[in-house]
Amino acid sequence: MEVKARAPGKIILTGEHAVVHGSTAVASSIDLYTYVSVRFSTPSDEEESLKLVLKDVALQFSWPISRIRTAFPKSGGSSCSVENAKSIAALVEELNIPDPNAGLASGVSAFLWLYSSIQGFKPATVVVTSELPLGSGLGSSAAFCVALSAALLAFTDSVSVDLNHQGWLSFPDTVLELLNKWAFEGEKIIHGKPSGIDNTVSAYGNIISFKSGNLTHLKSSVSLKMLITNTKVGRNTKALVAGVGERTLRHPDIMAFVFSAVDSISKELTSILKSPTPDELSVTEKEEKIEELMEMNQGLLQSMGVSHATIEIVLRTTLKYKLSSKLTGAGGGGCVLTLLPTLLSGTVVDKVVAELESCGFQCFIAGIGGRGVEINFGVSS
Amino acid sequence: MEVKARAPGKIILTGEHAVVHGSTAVASSIDLYTYVSVRFSTPSDEEESLKLVLKDVALQFSWPISRIRTAFPKSGGSSCSVENAKSIAALVEELNIPDPNAGLASGVSAFLWLYSSIQGFKPATVVVTSELPLGSGLGSSAAFCVALSAALLAFTDSVSVDLNHQGWLSFPDTVLELLNKWAFEGEKIIHGKPSGIDNTVSAYGNIISFKSGNLTHLKSSVSLKMLITNTKVGRNTKALVAGVGERTLRHPDIMAFVFSAVDSISKELTSILKSPTPDELSVTEKEEKIEELMEMNQGLLQSMGVSHATIEIVLRTTLKYKLSSKLTGAGGGGCVLTLLPTLLSGTVVDKVVAELESCGFQCFIAGIGGRGVEINFGVSS
Repeated sequence: MEVKARAPGKIILTGEHAVVHGSTAVASSIDLYTYVSVRFSTPSDEEESLKLVLKDVALQFSWPISRIRTAFPKSGGSSCSVENAKSIAALVEELNIPDPNAGLASGVSAFLWLYSSIQGFKPATVVVTSELPLGSGLGSSAAFCVALSAALLAFTDSVSVDLNHQGWLSFPDTVLELLNKWAFEGEKIIHGKPSGIDNTVSAYGNIISFKSGNLTHLKSSVSLKMLITNTKVGRNTKALVAGVGERTLRHPDIMAFVFSAVDSISKELTSILKSPTPDELSVTEKEEKIEELMEMNQGLLQSMGVSHATIEIVLRTTLKYKLSSKLTGAGGGGCVLTLLPTLLSGTVVDKVVAELESCGFQCFIAGIGGRGVEINFGVSS
Repeated sequence: MEVKARAPGKIILTGEHAVVHGSTAVASSIDLYTYVSVRFSTPSDEEESLKLVLKDVALQFSWPISRIRTAFPKSGGSSCSVENAKSIAALVEELNIPDPNAGLASGVSAFLWLYSSIQGFKPATVVVTSELPLGSGLGSSAAFCVALSAALLAFTDSVSVDLNHQGWLSFPDTVLELLNKWAFEGEKIIHGKPSGIDNTVSAYGNIISFKSGNLTHLKSSVSLKMLITNTKVGRNTKALVAGVGERTLRHPDIMAFVFSAVDSISKELTSILKSPTPDELSVTEKEEKIEELMEMNQGLLQSMGVSHATIEIVLRTTLKYKLSSKLTGAGGGGCVLTLLPTLLSGTVVDKVVAELESCGFQCFIAGIGGRGVEINFGVSS
């Protein structure tokens, strides 16, 4: 019995930081995925154990099922209890995950809790691979939690799926709601106080605008392609958010207008994305408008003080090719988005990517607003 | 009989572009001057002529007084008439000013008109030198018109000055008003439709906040020092202003908030500049606030789309030394301001300047908010 789930990463198109101060933000799924395959052991398997294989970092962890059973005397509960958290911490600490992968410990904790909560104590091998860079603001942890929850729920009574379906299969909204709740609990273990945006975008896909905790799903009428440049500069999201907060306290009037400008940008973006596109010309017009919105949002983010020297290098490099860019997420490093217009030649894209990579950055090309989490019974891990 | 006048250049501290859309802007004089000395010929001088010596560009023009007299049959009139403009154009055309100085023609026109309007047909030698780069947004043409008007008015009945005063002598407000009017007429000949800010700052000095045509003079309680970096990239001010206008038509809501944010920045700046400074610490605190305002204004200018690759290079270079910068004036090249805090060591300043100059930029260090136009009877040109 084997299932593979894939869940997309996310980008913030507009509104990061300002959203904390009441502005609208717009997030989108990207067609870069985290894959989680779960293979339940057959009785012939020698040892009853739970194995987690993190292929990208070439790490493998294994726990005897008896050990898991002892750690979670009381299964159930929709959130990770203090008691469970302690047991998990003990299990993970034993692993002595070495640097530079020590940061994965919280992901392993989320895995142990989600696995035992959803599947109990069945022996299995779980294999994880990802196209998303870790900790770069592209929602890799949420994609992991969503894909894991999807794979684990696929074989439970909560979900009825056609096991004979060929290819990728999406879930009905009721199931998405359920798995998104699980994924959010996993995100809490990893991040403490996540916004819930990342896992929701990863589960439902498409585009989501959000303001003061209210989410609106929307399907884009334009297929946008983005160049995502990972500056590889680690960010301290909390410090960046706090910095904007302090600046807002120092200059309340100015910042209120800055946030209102960002709110208007997000609103204009959603209205462009939703409006029907009759022909090719109009796609280009839409792209030009979106480029201008991105440029304006970037300027406003700079006025909030969350840009970074490496971000400026990416902006300057892409500007040479007349491409518009903005930081995405927390800023202070992290990733930069560059819109790749439909009519842009592949040669130009290759040149930009080559130039950015020569600066030591990592580039991804991603379609945005695609499908959310899906499962597949026909692929072997 | 000889007099020398000096008039300062100006910088826009905050609010450029946004001022066109109703926001407050703040301009300041800088202690970089244009000097104009006028020496009236004695009867022993061989030829009755009017000489203009532009020392910085090593150019010298001379007109027989009879020629001037024929060109301006009717003297008087507070503005340059169409008739006068034609005569001046003919006189200037004859000069065949060669490139790269052809741009000086309008300045020579302003000179001829101001000279004949204020002094009539007295033979004299007028020598001009300037610490201000031409056409870089630092108000060099206004400083020229102001200094010239001051020197020419010094010997008229409109002005009563102590000819025995030693050193630089400033004018009472009534005289400033008069000479500023003349200078504005000169600016019109050079620029067509100047705002009048440049000549007013050059005449009165100090700091001026302006909004919708209303000017407020203020004296700063802080002595700020700015590094002014001339990117030497020529700007097309009209095109830049038009670009912001078009963006405003495309995104009225967003841009309205952007302009309001700039308006708040200018207001906060004037209130910081006006507030009394009790001690050293407070100067540093003020400087830090002003740096933050400059950074925010720069981000907003970027969201208006008026930055430029060379401006970004200056920003990045100064940021390495933890210094805050913003473009000043039209953008798209031109000059960049960097605040030099009082406690910053000279070694750091030297390093920044060296690095900027190695990029091919030209650097000036200027105190801001100093005195306006002054005259001196004791200096020989």
